Amino acid sequence: MLEPDPGHFLLATTDLLIEDVHFRRRYAEPADIGWKSLAVNLSDIASMGGSPRWALVALACPSETTAAEIEAFYEGVHALAAEHGVAIVGGDTSSSPRGWTVNITLLGEARRPRLRSTARVGDVVAVTGPLGRSAAGLAVLEHGAPTVIAADLLADLTGAHLRPSPRVREGRWLGDAEGVTAMIDLSDGLATDLAHVAEASGVGVRVDLARIPVTEATRRVATAVGADALAWATGGGEDYELALACAPTAADALREGLARTSGTTLTLIGEVVAGDGVRFVDAGGRETATRPGWQHFRTERRA
Amino acid sequence: MLEPDPGHFLLATTDLLIEDVHFRRRYAEPADIGWKSLAVNLSDIASMGGSPRWALVALACPSETTAAEIEAFYEGVHALAAEHGVAIVGGDTSSSPRGWTVNITLLGEARRPRLRSTARVGDVVAVTGPLGRSAAGLAVLEHGAPTVIAADLLADLTGAHLRPSPRVREGRWLGDAEGVTAMIDLSDGLATDLAHVAEASGVGVRVDLARIPVTEATRRVATAVGADALAWATGGGEDYELALACAPTAADALREGLARTSGTTLTLIGEVVAGDGVRFVDAGGRETATRPGWQHFRTERRA
Repeated sequence: MLEPDPGHFLLATTDLLIEDVHFRRRYAEPADIGWKSLAVNLSDIASMGGSPRWALVALACPSETTAAEIEAFYEGVHALAAEHGVAIVGGDTSSSPRGWTVNITLLGEARRPRLRSTARVGDVVAVTGPLGRSAAGLAVLEHGAPTVIAADLLADLTGAHLRPSPRVREGRWLGDAEGVTAMIDLSDGLATDLAHVAEASGVGVRVDLARIPVTEATRRVATAVGADALAWATGGGEDYELALACAPTAADALREGLARTSGTTLTLIGEVVAGDGVRFVDAGGRETATRPGWQHFRTERRA
Repeated sequence: MLEPDPGHFLLATTDLLIEDVHFRRRYAEPADIGWKSLAVNLSDIASMGGSPRWALVALACPSETTAAEIEAFYEGVHALAAEHGVAIVGGDTSSSPRGWTVNITLLGEARRPRLRSTARVGDVVAVTGPLGRSAAGLAVLEHGAPTVIAADLLADLTGAHLRPSPRVREGRWLGDAEGVTAMIDLSDGLATDLAHVAEASGVGVRVDLARIPVTEATRRVATAVGADALAWATGGGEDYELALACAPTAADALREGLARTSGTTLTLIGEVVAGDGVRFVDAGGRETATRPGWQHFRTERRA
């Protein structure tokens, strides 16, 4: 029994997380699973510029699951919920014949929700943080830690994968700010998520590969495991940063304002152009193939 | 992006339905699974006297699932949603390494939500329809149809299990009616669900076994398969009827009003008494043991 604030739109988002599709028990602790299940929903509310309010948490796990594991799962949910003022108002529990399954539905509010369908030709495109960290962390978790890289750098990357920090404060600030025309969160990967913006807005997006922020740790892990850091940054997914389109004249004020209020760096990476689809352009101005979005253990399931 | 009506409370409920815990693909068609996943949530909103408004539908199924099966699932959801004016406003889809999983979250509204915690000593207890039909239908589905019983009677029982009709109109009418003090929907079985009312309200409940409505078809299936129809009616679960407590002086008007507006028969089955727990009393006034609630294929999983 909830009382929404008058004059606000109600926002609702839901996500299923399934063992061996979205996470593996081998390295995801129950508290990580709880945290991340809420984080992915918080990120979605953040992308609309909303304030998260109420969550419903459904959990199914096998009969051999211990009470301590279930408690740890809810502690993971509660830790992140408390950080963002979210009340757990309902849920469901069930036994599962096979593996863990989590579904969280998150309700939020916004006076003026931001959409992915309102980007305009001539806007610039920006992201709230470095990309590819989650994919780098996943590579470390799946294939082992390259010994040439310091433990704290690796922990930063695996933490980005296991316990992402959704950009809730940033989304709310950007949602209220003048000049932002469209927003989305990066769950499937830059290529896929910007394609959603392009399609919904009836525009094209041009991204300069050289401007995409990628951390040194991500680059070093990619080199160590023989992967492509830019492929992770454009197609790895699960970074849960925000991408936005804004008027070029507003970009400086947005970057300064966001840094001042949240400490988060807004990086311009491209432009909204006439046409359709997403094009990645290298430092020499040559167009490269777009890279596929995150497909949830695709390689393993195909093998 | 939803606009709740001013002056209303927002209601939210969520349910996970998992293959081989809540349904079996052997006899539950995809459209049945879709229908029932929404029905169980509608029943919960009905029990609060609310109007269902918006649903979020999450579905995970194995990679070998056909497009036609997935479409049929959503057709099952949409058929029941349309009947109750519910808009599907969001969702999620995922592959599943093992079996079907559905989670539906339903949002509704009520000006004055009904609770399970407000029954008063001296109230009478009533239910909106016959009990045990779903358990009888499940017995037929699990163990085969007794040949001595007509096909249309069996179809009524299996239909009650596979495609329950939640009492949405009845819940809304009862929620607005004078004299209703508490309400709950019968998902886990009369014994378990009335125990929730008793505990939440700080009272006891006394039920006359002889007054519990049980259909002739349910009795005949019970006899044919060597089961106890009253055990199904008190502990079988999944009937999705409403149980309510009301002032004794209001009972006649509620029964007549509900029959007039919805065609549904309200049957008085007991009283709210001082004390705690739920007691079942036979025709001779002797107290019998309470019967366990529905435990989702408990026998099979224990075997």
